[in-house]
Amino acid sequence: MKARVHITLKDGVLDPQGKAIGDSLRRIGYTSVSGVRQGKLIELDIDEKDRRRAAAEVERMCKDLLANPVIESYAIELDGVG
Amino acid sequence: MKARVHITLKDGVLDPQGKAIGDSLRRIGYTSVSGVRQGKLIELDIDEKDRRRAAAEVERMCKDLLANPVIESYAIELDGVG
Repeated sequence: MKARVHITLKDGVLDPQGKAIGDSLRRIGYTSVSGVRQGKLIELDIDEKDRRRAAAEVERMCKDLLANPVIESYAIELDGVG
Repeated sequence: MKARVHITLKDGVLDPQGKAIGDSLRRIGYTSVSGVRQGKLIELDIDEKDRRRAAAEVERMCKDLLANPVIESYAIELDGVG
């Protein structure tokens, strides 16, 4: 089963990388851009057929390693369904 | 309008960061993980009401700055619709 994890900084957490992207976009002429946040996308192949078990396993992976729950939120999508 | 850009390495392009995540996951017990790829997620706020124009503008941003079309693919999602 394929899983996709979107990891984004929580609201209120400073995002210097996103700010730098936004500043660069505006500098090269994209003045309609008012805000940019950068996050991570992690795609996993898991040898697990059961959807419920796969979701629980990816959730554990997020807490253990993939995300930093203090400053990041995560969203899990399994086989293209969020 | 809110846009989300998923940037992933093209197939065949080595992804050492994804490999490191996969190795770490297996080392801490997630042995069902067979492959991991890491990408970027960029969330943009754009002052543009027209959906078609917003899509075209984000597409140009990807080509100009956000993605490296030689080694990366990108997918654009507007207001939650891909």
